[in-house]
Amino acid sequence: MPGFRSAEIIAVGSELLTPHRSDTNSLFLTGRLNDLGIDVRSKAIVGDDRANLAALLRQALARADLVVITGGLGPTNDDVTREAVATALDRPLSENDELLAGLRARFASRGMTMPEINRRQAQVPRGAAPLPNSMGSAPGLWIDMAAGERGRAVVLLPGPPRELQPMFDQSVAPRLARESGGRRWRRRVVKLTGRAESQVDEVAQPVYGPFRDGEIPIDTTILAAPGQIELHLSAAGADLEAVDRALDEGVARLAAALVPHVFSVDGRSLEAVVGDLLQSKDLRIAVAESCTAGLVLARLTEVPGSSSWVVGGVVAYANEVKISALGVAPDLMALHGAVSEPVATAMADGVRVRFSADLGLSITGIAGPAGGSPEKPVGTVVIAIATGRAGSSVRTFRFPGDRRMVRQQATSAALDLVRRTLLASN
Amino acid sequence: MPGFRSAEIIAVGSELLTPHRSDTNSLFLTGRLNDLGIDVRSKAIVGDDRANLAALLRQALARADLVVITGGLGPTNDDVTREAVATALDRPLSENDELLAGLRARFASRGMTMPEINRRQAQVPRGAAPLPNSMGSAPGLWIDMAAGERGRAVVLLPGPPRELQPMFDQSVAPRLARESGGRRWRRRVVKLTGRAESQVDEVAQPVYGPFRDGEIPIDTTILAAPGQIELHLSAAGADLEAVDRALDEGVARLAAALVPHVFSVDGRSLEAVVGDLLQSKDLRIAVAESCTAGLVLARLTEVPGSSSWVVGGVVAYANEVKISALGVAPDLMALHGAVSEPVATAMADGVRVRFSADLGLSITGIAGPAGGSPEKPVGTVVIAIATGRAGSSVRTFRFPGDRRMVRQQATSAALDLVRRTLLASN
Repeated sequence: MPGFRSAEIIAVGSELLTPHRSDTNSLFLTGRLNDLGIDVRSKAIVGDDRANLAALLRQALARADLVVITGGLGPTNDDVTREAVATALDRPLSENDELLAGLRARFASRGMTMPEINRRQAQVPRGAAPLPNSMGSAPGLWIDMAAGERGRAVVLLPGPPRELQPMFDQSVAPRLARESGGRRWRRRVVKLTGRAESQVDEVAQPVYGPFRDGEIPIDTTILAAPGQIELHLSAAGADLEAVDRALDEGVARLAAALVPHVFSVDGRSLEAVVGDLLQSKDLRIAVAESCTAGLVLARLTEVPGSSSWVVGGVVAYANEVKISALGVAPDLMALHGAVSEPVATAMADGVRVRFSADLGLSITGIAGPAGGSPEKPVGTVVIAIATGRAGSSVRTFRFPGDRRMVRQQATSAALDLVRRTLLASN
Repeated sequence: MPGFRSAEIIAVGSELLTPHRSDTNSLFLTGRLNDLGIDVRSKAIVGDDRANLAALLRQALARADLVVITGGLGPTNDDVTREAVATALDRPLSENDELLAGLRARFASRGMTMPEINRRQAQVPRGAAPLPNSMGSAPGLWIDMAAGERGRAVVLLPGPPRELQPMFDQSVAPRLARESGGRRWRRRVVKLTGRAESQVDEVAQPVYGPFRDGEIPIDTTILAAPGQIELHLSAAGADLEAVDRALDEGVARLAAALVPHVFSVDGRSLEAVVGDLLQSKDLRIAVAESCTAGLVLARLTEVPGSSSWVVGGVVAYANEVKISALGVAPDLMALHGAVSEPVATAMADGVRVRFSADLGLSITGIAGPAGGSPEKPVGTVVIAIATGRAGSSVRTFRFPGDRRMVRQQATSAALDLVRRTLLASN
């Protein structure tokens, strides 16, 4: 018996087509299906429209082994899932006596008579097996496809997460696991910073390209966010040790090709990596921020336990604060300007000494939209690190994008410069 | 010429089929399309799979006037949208010289040579009109369907929200508006802080309930985020002046019922409201942050032009910094603890005086997960404002949730306390 390999998820509900509501059930279901070795190929969200849902279900069954439909199982006229599935599969609805008795008992147990409208929830397409709902009135349904039909099964689940989640775990997952014969997915993430997506891909593609054709094929996806690129590797198999070995080898090859930009291959954030390095070296950091104005310290202190390696710092937004709170010489400011390597160096030194830290980090720049000049356009950012001994450094960057992007990239670049400085001091 | 009535949105990207990522672009697009009187009929999310995307596009065009495809326009092999659309519409790709020149110029302006791989971004299906991307390299595309073809247009937009959103507003919305005639949606947002969603709804529901039955019916939605609640009002009609009048009256009634928690009825963020108040009173603020560690300053300085009313501040993460950089008396710390009203008051005073600001704001608290005690559990946050004269104040809060939520709520509460202090000093 072949296992389930691919799934599609269809979320039903007109409220999911407003600007304010997201379908979150599919995230839960994707996680659970991936764990079972089942790949989610696509997801769809439709309103309470019978014909549209029926058409989508037929198309999904032509592509996937398993189609999971969530929502639309309530008792009202807006709840169209049962009818749409009956239409799409050409399996007429009939009333299931056992379900009806269960619904009546559920209402009776609360001293109520079942409203006639709830009778619709006992209607099931021919051949459908009910899935008990421990948290609500809507039963789920499992429908096995017959030989000659497309797909292998259709599963209908109620929309509310507190009903859907236990139903999936209690009734659907065990059945899928039985029929899927062991195959599981594993994932790895390689994170890096300081390079654009296209630059990373140009180096990485020749490395990961052949991964697809390995004995255990590895899928690779590249994801970009301001100041950070992620390479996601995933592979599936029944022999999980072999899958893990293949992924670890893939990660090692990619990391080797992309040194020194890779900061994490174990899921840790850049700030957590920096924190672990500081902790292991028993060093404490203080930060002087101008254009990032607190973003670097906010990120560092997102890490629980950061109080053992973050002293604090100064947000020197106004130029006079660079002088009064960090001891930058007024002459230096006048001569080179606030956004310059000498001033950044003096800021890093100042915050290190005044906050009694081992490491001083400073960021000064022009985030825009105003403040740029031909020599120092918007996006110019200077980052300095003071150690009080060898290993101090200063660098000038030019970041593209708007105010928000410049600040985010400057924050990542500053954290990465700390990481590299700490690694180099080994 | 008939307007666009119905749309479908297809989000492309294998990362959107993992358990960790949601498609958020479709929420933005749905809001904007609804504003233009266009109904979103369904949404789909597909991986980086050309055949699958091509099939979905053909199906969507059979149902909707407009199909918007987001993502998959990058330069890598994973970016399949251009090819899939060319296949689905049977319109071969060719290189657009103008786009290619633009891409080369974009890289050149940063002193880089365009990687060969980016050349793919200049490929366009026959008859497609490029949409300029002010924020990234990937151009969007607008494709008008010919007579006899299904649908009226296909629009391709880049995946990153900071590229997609301005492109939609600058190039797509005006074109749709031109072709959609008459009926428009209008929206208003009432923003408030310092109250839970259920508390707001209890007060607001009796006010907005009857809005549905007005001459111009108003839809109201309540949205909650940590530290902020929004009430969204929307109404449609061809007589935009009448629609605006009805909405303005609704907003006024809601704001009156929810005073003093409402901080904005014109879309401004809390930090922008605070900034405008400071600016109008010609006052400058300095901030001493402990548990929020830079988040308050980072939010204030997100506002362009904030350098005229933000001096800067101190992140006093370690307790000794509260003493050395803010002048808090060691005895006060020993007697009351770092998270206490006397210490918060001393921090606010210290940062005000040392940074020569008019207003000093301080935040000290226990964000967790560690550091709580029976008297001061995790979530305890003290916020103080020093003015150097009448109007200073200090308040103790207890926020629910994890580290991240406590920090976000503390940040909003601090900004709101500044807002109320400035309003009271009128």
